[in-house]
Amino acid sequence: MQAEILSVGTELLLGEITDTNAQYISARLREIGVSVYRRETIGDNRSRLTGAFREALSRASLVIATGGLGPTGDDVTAECLAAALDLPLEFHEGAWEDMLEWFRLRGRTPATADRKQAMIIRGGIPFRNKNGTAPGQAILTDGKLACVLPGPPREMIPMFEEHLVPLIRSTFTDLVPLYIKNLKLSGIPESKVGEAIRDLMDSANPTVAPYAGRGQIRIRIAARHTDPAESRKMVDQAADEVKRRLSDYIYGEDEDTLESVVGEIMARRGLSIAVAESVTGGFLSHRLTNVPGSSRYFKMGVVAYSPAIKATCLGVPDEALRKDEAVNAETAVSMASGVRALAGAKIGVATTGFAGPTGGTENEPVGTVYVAVADEDGTEVERYVYTGSRTDIKEYGAGRALYVLWRRLMKSRRSPQGPKEGTVK
Amino acid sequence: MQAEILSVGTELLLGEITDTNAQYISARLREIGVSVYRRETIGDNRSRLTGAFREALSRASLVIATGGLGPTGDDVTAECLAAALDLPLEFHEGAWEDMLEWFRLRGRTPATADRKQAMIIRGGIPFRNKNGTAPGQAILTDGKLACVLPGPPREMIPMFEEHLVPLIRSTFTDLVPLYIKNLKLSGIPESKVGEAIRDLMDSANPTVAPYAGRGQIRIRIAARHTDPAESRKMVDQAADEVKRRLSDYIYGEDEDTLESVVGEIMARRGLSIAVAESVTGGFLSHRLTNVPGSSRYFKMGVVAYSPAIKATCLGVPDEALRKDEAVNAETAVSMASGVRALAGAKIGVATTGFAGPTGGTENEPVGTVYVAVADEDGTEVERYVYTGSRTDIKEYGAGRALYVLWRRLMKSRRSPQGPKEGTVK
Repeated sequence: MQAEILSVGTELLLGEITDTNAQYISARLREIGVSVYRRETIGDNRSRLTGAFREALSRASLVIATGGLGPTGDDVTAECLAAALDLPLEFHEGAWEDMLEWFRLRGRTPATADRKQAMIIRGGIPFRNKNGTAPGQAILTDGKLACVLPGPPREMIPMFEEHLVPLIRSTFTDLVPLYIKNLKLSGIPESKVGEAIRDLMDSANPTVAPYAGRGQIRIRIAARHTDPAESRKMVDQAADEVKRRLSDYIYGEDEDTLESVVGEIMARRGLSIAVAESVTGGFLSHRLTNVPGSSRYFKMGVVAYSPAIKATCLGVPDEALRKDEAVNAETAVSMASGVRALAGAKIGVATTGFAGPTGGTENEPVGTVYVAVADEDGTEVERYVYTGSRTDIKEYGAGRALYVLWRRLMKSRRSPQGPKEGTVK
Repeated sequence: MQAEILSVGTELLLGEITDTNAQYISARLREIGVSVYRRETIGDNRSRLTGAFREALSRASLVIATGGLGPTGDDVTAECLAAALDLPLEFHEGAWEDMLEWFRLRGRTPATADRKQAMIIRGGIPFRNKNGTAPGQAILTDGKLACVLPGPPREMIPMFEEHLVPLIRSTFTDLVPLYIKNLKLSGIPESKVGEAIRDLMDSANPTVAPYAGRGQIRIRIAARHTDPAESRKMVDQAADEVKRRLSDYIYGEDEDTLESVVGEIMARRGLSIAVAESVTGGFLSHRLTNVPGSSRYFKMGVVAYSPAIKATCLGVPDEALRKDEAVNAETAVSMASGVRALAGAKIGVATTGFAGPTGGTENEPVGTVYVAVADEDGTEVERYVYTGSRTDIKEYGAGRALYVLWRRLMKSRRSPQGPKEGTVK
């Protein structure tokens, strides 16, 4: 069984946006046991797109197109699939009702042009769009499944997962899925991970492969076996071996994030947290509050950009503020203790540094980030120097703060008396 | 003249790596005046790749393939292009000498398998690889230019720029570069933009097309004319017409972001800002502080998740905190005024709402966001209801807050006396 993916949009051919959809769909199809043999990118052009659908359908059993489902005149994907199949598009009441409800929930009224998005190929199945107006659709003809999904990833991904994956599984019943587990790591460079697991990376089934992201690493372990219990066992054995070697850095699995893991620990132990940010500018609070239910433990964040705010709200002493423009260990520690006291929280976390692109001092260049954590056992502070853009440094700094917080939470579990007061690393 | 791009590599079809080459080449070809009509991604498979080359060469005058030039058995790109052209591959002494020098410079000796990389299609031109071993190559037959480049971007990009761009320009002498301008909009749905500029979107030169992103829209205007001054004039005229129709929503052009535009206005007018966030959880501060130099006007952010913090730090009255769990207009206004006073800033901006996924009240469902702005002219507050994930709602809410701030900054420029106190929309 062969699959092909069509990415539709002139903006792709103009190089204006990156096509992440094709990669996402490729990776997920591989997981569920479907092999992708070809991907194409086509502009919003009726004849070329209709031709591309015809060619793909002549070769493949599964054809998935993304993009070009909007209300405007250059959104022609559904129309071109219909033409390739020699089937008419018909106004679909159910799809239209779903769209009306979407508008109602947002207190908006649809424009006349929006009706076009409810046109479904005769015999096709509309896919409701949770995060936008344009429904997707799929049609099964001659044992071949063709479908169109919206272009924005936040609309495409949920629709792919909730509607298309079950339909592929029920249509092609002999797929052998890949069983996959991801281990999530922070606080260690990719090269050190590679050194630690090089021998495991030579295995063909299960495969073990590290992928580096922004300030964190994912180790993907995957096995394929006709007996699902067997593939799970192969993966679990390899995962146990990786965990044995890298336990200080593995904070979770699969969907876990540093913020969800520290949040879960804090909620379970009845802890609360407040953060004071300078260099990370709100991004640390953003990550902590991305976790559903974070209001149980997240009390407040203070983005203290000006020295006056650091002094009056957080009690950072004058001499610390004057030293290297408030980028130093003492400022970070004062901010962490200060916000902890201000919010009446069990834990205070703080960041200070230089995000750039200009600035910095002789001692503390652009990219310097201090992270401090304060709790009832005392404080700790760590200095790190990153390279990258302004947002890179904000994001790396926030990630490091979460890692230091996680490490401290794990330590305080292991040694009840906690680390020494004022440990400066 | 049409161009097509082939991205070669089974790892691409497995979704293991992102194809950035195709986007890079697309964007650069657009700039020099070549239109890309189709891109394909093919695995390391002889028959499929040879077929893809044949098809592309039957349609396009310029075919560029990347990837699959290495020394191993599954690197078959040059071989497949030769087969598609019915031409032999021949060992090329010059290409081999270049490779030997690359090895010499690194104190390495080539393996036997490396000789394969010096096989050049009869009549073809080898491209020296500065950053790797595999040379690229190009061949001109029947007025069509076909070429293969290595897959790693650090090898591909210099080769593309130094060898292929000059060859394209000397082969196709009538290329006319495209002139492009993007207008950036916020605060309006895509369908309303479509209605406002539908007639302009029918134009073929200049083209006018809207692209929707997260809470904002970009209208791309592009023209092609042999006289560069004329293409610029065509774009400017169309842009002026779009601006005339949608002036209330167009906040900038090209690289502008809402945060860079409001930041530039505040810096120029000597204004300062403080923000109080509940539902947006720090993301609004993050966006404002993403702008280099934002410390000139950004004084502080308070992420006030708990009612106690809203009361003690920001002075939100008890009755407002009790009504719909502090998700109401009065709370938003109090937070904006409170943080403005706390920080001693000229402008206060606040958000409150329900990001979900659970919670909300009968009056205020998940997705509700109140945005308030306070300045010396008074306050305004706006309610909006979004759908999406928790992070979607945080991001939409922050985007809306920036839009409301921008609108207020524009209004205060237009009417010196400012809007009425306590306007609730």
